[in-house]
Amino acid sequence: MTSLYNLFYPHSICIVGASSKQKSIGYELLNSIKRYGFTGEVFPVNPKVDVILDYKCYENIKEITKTIDLGIIVVPKAFAEDSIDDLISNGIKSIILITAGFRETGVEGELAEKRIIEKIKKSGARLVGPNCMGVINTFSDIKLNATFVAEKPATGHTAFLSQSGAIGAAVLNSLRESGIKFGHFISVGNKADISENDLLRFWNNDDRINTLTFYLESFSNGESFINNFIENNINKPVIILKAGKSASGIKAATSHTGALASSDKVVNAVLEQFGIIRANDLNELFNTAKGFENYPIPRGNRIAIVTNAGGPSILAVDKLEEGNLVLAELSPETIKRLKEIVHPEGSCTNPVDLLPGGNAEQFKSVNKLLLEDDNVDGVVSIFVEPVMVSPFELVEGINSIKSGKPLMQVVMPLPEFWEKYRQESVFNYPIFRNPEDPVEVLSNMLFYSDSKVKKERLRPDKTIPKKYNCGYLSQQETDVLLNEYNIPNIPSLLVTPEELIKITELSFPVCLKGISPNVIHKSELNGVKLNISTFEELLKSANEIERNFSFKGFTVEKFLIQPFLKVKHELLVGGFRDPSFGPIVMFGSGGKYVEILNDTSMKSAYLSENDIEDLISTTKVGQIIKGVRGDKGVNLNIIKSLVKNSARMILNNKEILEFDLNPLIVTDDNIMITADARIKWGRS
Amino acid sequence: MTSLYNLFYPHSICIVGASSKQKSIGYELLNSIKRYGFTGEVFPVNPKVDVILDYKCYENIKEITKTIDLGIIVVPKAFAEDSIDDLISNGIKSIILITAGFRETGVEGELAEKRIIEKIKKSGARLVGPNCMGVINTFSDIKLNATFVAEKPATGHTAFLSQSGAIGAAVLNSLRESGIKFGHFISVGNKADISENDLLRFWNNDDRINTLTFYLESFSNGESFINNFIENNINKPVIILKAGKSASGIKAATSHTGALASSDKVVNAVLEQFGIIRANDLNELFNTAKGFENYPIPRGNRIAIVTNAGGPSILAVDKLEEGNLVLAELSPETIKRLKEIVHPEGSCTNPVDLLPGGNAEQFKSVNKLLLEDDNVDGVVSIFVEPVMVSPFELVEGINSIKSGKPLMQVVMPLPEFWEKYRQESVFNYPIFRNPEDPVEVLSNMLFYSDSKVKKERLRPDKTIPKKYNCGYLSQQETDVLLNEYNIPNIPSLLVTPEELIKITELSFPVCLKGISPNVIHKSELNGVKLNISTFEELLKSANEIERNFSFKGFTVEKFLIQPFLKVKHELLVGGFRDPSFGPIVMFGSGGKYVEILNDTSMKSAYLSENDIEDLISTTKVGQIIKGVRGDKGVNLNIIKSLVKNSARMILNNKEILEFDLNPLIVTDDNIMITADARIKWGRS
Repeated sequence: MTSLYNLFYPHSICIVGASSKQKSIGYELLNSIKRYGFTGEVFPVNPKVDVILDYKCYENIKEITKTIDLGIIVVPKAFAEDSIDDLISNGIKSIILITAGFRETGVEGELAEKRIIEKIKKSGARLVGPNCMGVINTFSDIKLNATFVAEKPATGHTAFLSQSGAIGAAVLNSLRESGIKFGHFISVGNKADISENDLLRFWNNDDRINTLTFYLESFSNGESFINNFIENNINKPVIILKAGKSASGIKAATSHTGALASSDKVVNAVLEQFGIIRANDLNELFNTAKGFENYPIPRGNRIAIVTNAGGPSILAVDKLEEGNLVLAELSPETIKRLKEIVHPEGSCTNPVDLLPGGNAEQFKSVNKLLLEDDNVDGVVSIFVEPVMVSPFELVEGINSIKSGKPLMQVVMPLPEFWEKYRQESVFNYPIFRNPEDPVEVLSNMLFYSDSKVKKERLRPDKTIPKKYNCGYLSQQETDVLLNEYNIPNIPSLLVTPEELIKITELSFPVCLKGISPNVIHKSELNGVKLNISTFEELLKSANEIERNFSFKGFTVEKFLIQPFLKVKHELLVGGFRDPSFGPIVMFGSGGKYVEILNDTSMKSAYLSENDIEDLISTTKVGQIIKGVRGDKGVNLNIIKSLVKNSARMILNNKEILEFDLNPLIVTDDNIMITADARIKWGRS
Repeated sequence: MTSLYNLFYPHSICIVGASSKQKSIGYELLNSIKRYGFTGEVFPVNPKVDVILDYKCYENIKEITKTIDLGIIVVPKAFAEDSIDDLISNGIKSIILITAGFRETGVEGELAEKRIIEKIKKSGARLVGPNCMGVINTFSDIKLNATFVAEKPATGHTAFLSQSGAIGAAVLNSLRESGIKFGHFISVGNKADISENDLLRFWNNDDRINTLTFYLESFSNGESFINNFIENNINKPVIILKAGKSASGIKAATSHTGALASSDKVVNAVLEQFGIIRANDLNELFNTAKGFENYPIPRGNRIAIVTNAGGPSILAVDKLEEGNLVLAELSPETIKRLKEIVHPEGSCTNPVDLLPGGNAEQFKSVNKLLLEDDNVDGVVSIFVEPVMVSPFELVEGINSIKSGKPLMQVVMPLPEFWEKYRQESVFNYPIFRNPEDPVEVLSNMLFYSDSKVKKERLRPDKTIPKKYNCGYLSQQETDVLLNEYNIPNIPSLLVTPEELIKITELSFPVCLKGISPNVIHKSELNGVKLNISTFEELLKSANEIERNFSFKGFTVEKFLIQPFLKVKHELLVGGFRDPSFGPIVMFGSGGKYVEILNDTSMKSAYLSENDIEDLISTTKVGQIIKGVRGDKGVNLNIIKSLVKNSARMILNNKEILEFDLNPLIVTDDNIMITADARIKWGRS
């Protein structure tokens, strides 16, 4: 961890490529370091200059005799590899390579990046970047702003990692307006070595950091990221803005950092499963961080709103439902006491409306009352500046209330307010600009606290690896594997067309399917015949299937004969190995309309009992099979153990790339059985 | 229209209740009028004062001998009715009643409001309010700010109506920061007389207004609002922020203005159907208005992005798909020319990345090239301020480009930029703060232009009104009505239990349903038996149904016998009369899982041919019945005419409160027939 520690807490740094030319990165970075008042020693390296910004300059690294905790490289690309060599041979273990022009620019750059990483790994050093914009530590014992944005960030206890330097720069540019405060900032660029996985663990163990925020365009290794949550090792809120959502977004993300982005559905499912907050935009990311940084987490979802104006409170209320929050029912005692304060034409139920005449004293008293009500878990106070009441004293009065519950303020004032508040506020709590903002924040905080309960989860069992050929497993291999995991599979008879003719014994009714290794969707070729009751019909059906296949240029290799079941519902249980997050399981509506119905949910196969329940109940078919309007439902425990066993199967067999039990039939008698199973085997 | 015209274009106004007391509404309103430089005459009325703010004050209205175009009342509630009388008897036809304390406060206030409206109607005057905050006209020949927010709004061609005074005040408070410009603003409060319906028509006919924006908590009469669109009378973009979305939001909306809010699903469906843009928050509302005010409407959905930074462009791209936009494929010629400008390590495909070194000249040239590409319908230019390039000149350079296509800018600068831009920009185009913003705006503009095509729509036919008893129609009445509208209904035999026993002829298989006026969901009581093949089975089934009913305390009054059909799909066609928007039709998945499947779409029954297609194809079952994977689909024209006839039925019969064809069965042979129909009759 020392290498990571020295990124944020160095006592001495060298800047290779420091420059005396204003507006160059080599100059501006040094300027930021100086302006912000770094408490350690600074060693600029530049063979052509003696002094930059009052710092003595060194011709090369060897000249520096003191120990250097952190090396920052800002030289042109052509000199980057040499600089790396120099730093390594001087025993420097923490390196930030700001220089761009590597993997993100094509094959040549990628090779250079690989060479650098080999050197780094060999030396035992750690590297941030390349193609990044540096690091910030705002704590007073360090005061390091090693970026080229010369702002002076205020100290907070949020850590912020940005995969994009530009997003980092945009956030830093806006600090004076946005009031965002953080402890650590790091721009990780191409993540050739150090990634979000390292910082997640580092910050989780750094006592000064309370909240972790990430802007990511890709996960370096999603499975290893979530493994920290599977093992219940993370005990701080983690908020992620994951860009590259849409197909075209992924294209942009790829061209930008050359990283493979996971399907957005998987990202969504997995983050939710492990209690990681996913923000939709930068405002939500930092508003939520402000929430954790400044307020207690609400203990429940009952929110009270106080306002001097109807409209904005309606906008806030509108947002409650979306965030799984509700308007608190105020206790009769609270309502009674509110009536002593609130104007008779105002409202004493939630949202409490003080009308435009509501003054500082009333706002303060009402907020206090609401916080004291046992039916209330959090309060949002909304103030639109009218002519008769000035906002500053009112806002500060509310800020002065102490409570174990969150109390967040929205103010919609004349522009002068903001500067006055920044300059003169004693409390300096965040003020939200939109009525919807605190609702979003409270909802995110509650989501976090609801999901941070430690959970027992499925893990891979110790098993003997199986050896199958790559590709889809044969019917027999599939049967054996499903049987091992107690997944009920329909009995089936696999015969060649020649053998079919000779069958003499069969318990009807059956169904018949044509099999060819090249045909996946049998029903598209009319390759399935149901409810066959006689031998005569069987032969006729076989002929028809053969005709249908040959019409499309295929040949029936084998026929599959299975009992015909009376289908009540068709389900799907499936799974796949995500390139980033590893084994994923799915549950939902099955059958041939599966794509159109689009009624499936998915989760990482590292399932908890709760996860299994969620997986089922968040689908429509999951609600239907529980029994609706006189239907006798399916035994839910059977479905749960089926999902669980499927998850165990893909966890234990790392070679399963995909599997698909579709349809998994629920019969008229509520018996569940797989009618068609496919398993794809290979190396991931 | 003169009464409405004089709200915005008066040459003389009186303020009843003008006051010399600072911070009072009667003072601040006059102060706003004076500060903003109203070009007409001002007559304050206050019996106790001679002069306020240099205006001569009048003891009462009769004293004023000149014609008064607009009367504004700000007296305490107790004097409001007298003031109305005074204005009316002086022949004033345009009145704004700012005073609050009416319908929004309870029964007494409601009665006072009703008395006022009676007087207004009798006199032929028109009234804004009560409980509102006034009116603004920014055009230089009028310059009227008759609100109590003393800001000086800049002139634009957007009109803004706010049902909430506070939302109006919040928007006015923020004008200097937000850069919102408008021509007219009006706060309509309780909408006792003048509502959005009046303003919609007025602004549509006012040549100075190009874009209409509304903040609404309820529609005063939704059917009359949309009637303007049905008749193709509106030819300007209309953007609505409709609050009161959630169940609890509606509660807040109701307590606030005492108005009934329509179900949010209906609002969504209807606004979309008639090409009205629904904004999700105030930012989207005004960003979209800025779009229409400053840029040409994109002619297609292919967007090009130019940036100096990967991250923000990915956030923009992420938003494209959601807005039905795509990343433009640049032409080879454009790419070739881009290569001459863009840094070799940047990107010449879309999004074009100039890297942090991208300067003013490059940005300008690239934006021009992209606009000239025939494959591009609109351009978003994103600039994150780096140390080496200052933003102002770069932004102005881009502003100077002339094109018939929209070119929108996102800038993420140091805070100093904003003030400089406000002060010094020659062009003063809007600058968006978030990469997602212009994408949202372009998407809204395109939605508007796609849907503003004039459409033929269904209208009520002239028919002889039918007389039925209120409540659910009988089986026979239902049959007759469905038959009249060519809606295929399953043949059925309705018999008493006694008659059932005597049946001798029947073509099996049939199904049997128990009927009791008190039982709506038959299947919950096991009141339906399917696939009955013999008389013996029929009697047995009837006995069972009677047992099941009596078990739950019901009696079978009659039995319904219908042919048993082999069901392939179950659909639902239905409709209801919305309290605000009138007749609505629905299409979607039917059967007993209808609530869980939640796969229905709805539209106003004033359908165009396109609407009918949309209604079907936006549901999952609508896609399925078209034929999937080897299925032969249903004839789409049959479904369309079925939906159309259902719409005609509810349009022509104003007494149909609800109707429900569920299930509408598609048989194995793709025949469609209603298996169960219910029609509720009454006065709406």
